[in-house]
Amino acid sequence: MRIEVVTIGDELLLGFTIDTNAAHLARALAAEGVEIERRTTCGDTAESIASAVGDALNRTGAVITTGGLGPTSDDLTKPSIAALFGRDMVLDEEHLEWMEERWRTRFQRPMPASNRQQAMLPAGARKLTNHHGSAPGILLEDDRGRWVAMLPGVPREMRGMLADTLLPLVRARLGSDRRVVRSKTLRTTGLGESFIADLVATIDGGIGDAGLAYLPNADGTDLRMTVRDATPDDADVRLSTAAGRLRGVIGDAVYGEDSTDLAAVVLDLCRAQGITVGVAESCTGGLLGARLTAIPGSSDVVRGGVIAYDNSVKIASLGVPEALLIEHGAVSEPVVRAMAAGGRRAARADAALAITGIAGPDGGTEAKPVGTVWIGLDMAGRVDARRYAMVGDRGEIRHRAAQAALEMLRRRLIAPA
Amino acid sequence: MRIEVVTIGDELLLGFTIDTNAAHLARALAAEGVEIERRTTCGDTAESIASAVGDALNRTGAVITTGGLGPTSDDLTKPSIAALFGRDMVLDEEHLEWMEERWRTRFQRPMPASNRQQAMLPAGARKLTNHHGSAPGILLEDDRGRWVAMLPGVPREMRGMLADTLLPLVRARLGSDRRVVRSKTLRTTGLGESFIADLVATIDGGIGDAGLAYLPNADGTDLRMTVRDATPDDADVRLSTAAGRLRGVIGDAVYGEDSTDLAAVVLDLCRAQGITVGVAESCTGGLLGARLTAIPGSSDVVRGGVIAYDNSVKIASLGVPEALLIEHGAVSEPVVRAMAAGGRRAARADAALAITGIAGPDGGTEAKPVGTVWIGLDMAGRVDARRYAMVGDRGEIRHRAAQAALEMLRRRLIAPA
Repeated sequence: MRIEVVTIGDELLLGFTIDTNAAHLARALAAEGVEIERRTTCGDTAESIASAVGDALNRTGAVITTGGLGPTSDDLTKPSIAALFGRDMVLDEEHLEWMEERWRTRFQRPMPASNRQQAMLPAGARKLTNHHGSAPGILLEDDRGRWVAMLPGVPREMRGMLADTLLPLVRARLGSDRRVVRSKTLRTTGLGESFIADLVATIDGGIGDAGLAYLPNADGTDLRMTVRDATPDDADVRLSTAAGRLRGVIGDAVYGEDSTDLAAVVLDLCRAQGITVGVAESCTGGLLGARLTAIPGSSDVVRGGVIAYDNSVKIASLGVPEALLIEHGAVSEPVVRAMAAGGRRAARADAALAITGIAGPDGGTEAKPVGTVWIGLDMAGRVDARRYAMVGDRGEIRHRAAQAALEMLRRRLIAPA
Repeated sequence: MRIEVVTIGDELLLGFTIDTNAAHLARALAAEGVEIERRTTCGDTAESIASAVGDALNRTGAVITTGGLGPTSDDLTKPSIAALFGRDMVLDEEHLEWMEERWRTRFQRPMPASNRQQAMLPAGARKLTNHHGSAPGILLEDDRGRWVAMLPGVPREMRGMLADTLLPLVRARLGSDRRVVRSKTLRTTGLGESFIADLVATIDGGIGDAGLAYLPNADGTDLRMTVRDATPDDADVRLSTAAGRLRGVIGDAVYGEDSTDLAAVVLDLCRAQGITVGVAESCTGGLLGARLTAIPGSSDVVRGGVIAYDNSVKIASLGVPEALLIEHGAVSEPVVRAMAAGGRRAARADAALAITGIAGPDGGTEAKPVGTVWIGLDMAGRVDARRYAMVGDRGEIRHRAAQAALEMLRRRLIAPA
């Protein structure tokens, strides 16, 4: 089955709204075995809708649209597409009554007249139930089997309707021998893309027939395996095989799969080992603490800590000797070691992570350029420290610093005693 | 000028990557007077690129593409579009030398052979300088005036190249009588959408011919004014008029315009008044500190503070009396007041913000449901405290809490003495 997607709306075309519906639709359809051939975004005029949807229909005969089903006068999706199919718009009495009842019981007032047009449907259309709003979706099909499914533009409504009504219809049409596109991601941090590629090259026989993409980002390097043109069961087996082979060479540098957050991994390891954690942050200013406490249930591991942005706070709250700051500077090994020890004391924790660095854009020197970051870990009195050269802008450097700190703790927690 | 945009990449089509380039391009072009007619996303194959770009060229004769200029074998944008124009690919010696030199000086090693293809350009193409990466952009034009501009897919590179090279070219072609779409946003926080709408309804004569959209989000409610079909100067005048009228009724609840961050506004006010700031964070776990220190140059205002996630840290590092925690609970007015005072002492600052609340998903009670947040401000010993009921999930509640704390400080700083 070849499908095109048309997302409709001036907000999208003008760039005021980022089109998240398109990505969601694509992932959901690919996982069921439908590859989207092309995606088009057009404006709210009847002419541009008819032109974009008509072109897509001519190419594939199967189109999913989002947007333009609301009660306002710029919602022209239904009549524009009805015209493409040579259908009139007719009042759906049943839907009108349902909407009027919904307004009475839910909003305690009569339905505004402008909503009436939501009950006007193309003749012969099939309604797709909307459990999250009042505009029904529409499935319009002609006697040559060409069809357009119209979904709402509000992401929550679109996602609900897709899962509840459209995907089951698509699945039924595809039958059991459908071929799907599925993917799985392994997450790593702290290893260069080319270093990983060299390891991968040593795998005898490669990773099977899964495609492999290296996705460097501020968290590290993600490895996404994608299997195409497989039955659903077969796809899952092939992805597991590929993941197993990659883990065989990359080992415990893989901290998780898919959208796993390193902070959650670290919290789970701490919880399993009964270890509490504190932080002492300079250049990240609270970002590491925010990352850790963003995870629900973090309170049984995270104690807290000190944001020591100014040197006076490093001295007073973390007990960093002033002489170290004067002699070595705030971004130095002796200072990060003292910060880690002080953070552990202040947070009354088993382990503490300390970060001090130059996030930029100013403050760099030849000896310590922007991106220089020292990270320290004090665990039960044993202190490790390491210097990093982070790339990117201020936001990226800070994010990478917090990620590197979490990785330092993870490595210590999984190391053999 | 009618333009179409084609964004290229399997990553986009499969929904693994959200297409932010498309929205950025649209806003930037609309502000210069170019309305995008249609936007298409296609996969990485030569066939789909040629088909999508060819269709777009046939409709408008002017196309901007993003993606597919990198060194990997799936980057087929250049040869596919060269073929549409009947051009061969030729080696650009000058660019090859520049790349080789860049690898030598920047990465201290010879350029990998795979990068050589980045120096292959369609014959007769004009290079668009890339200050943020190694792949040049390409402008290809035929003798009938039809053109395709190819920009990189990496957002930072695409944005830089658009601003540096393509927009000036577009501006020159449009001349002075172009009609633009421009918008301006006023940012508010802490006021309900309907409350603002009631104020706006009192404006005599409305806000002129600018359209007005209410955009509620986790930062607050943004008010976006949009002017269409105006000359650049006229658009700016109309937007200023509309903004002035809105400010007339909303007053100093507007904290900034467009993408202004409330943290930056607060830092500027502190700097102007010579005030230093500290934080004492429980449920936000460092998020407020991270927001403040994300702003370059924050170090002359922000001292630091305490992440007091666990009650033991509230007692030891902030000096919150244990009796208060036992009697009132950690999420209470007496505790947030003690936290604010303790945060000011710990950070040695003129003012300190304290946050304690229930971010969920667990931990709520009937008296203090999830979303209950107390925020306190100690400024030179005078302490304010206020209770909030935040809506949303854990992430939204924490974000709204940090935003409300910043707004509390802003209000104090702009209040008449």
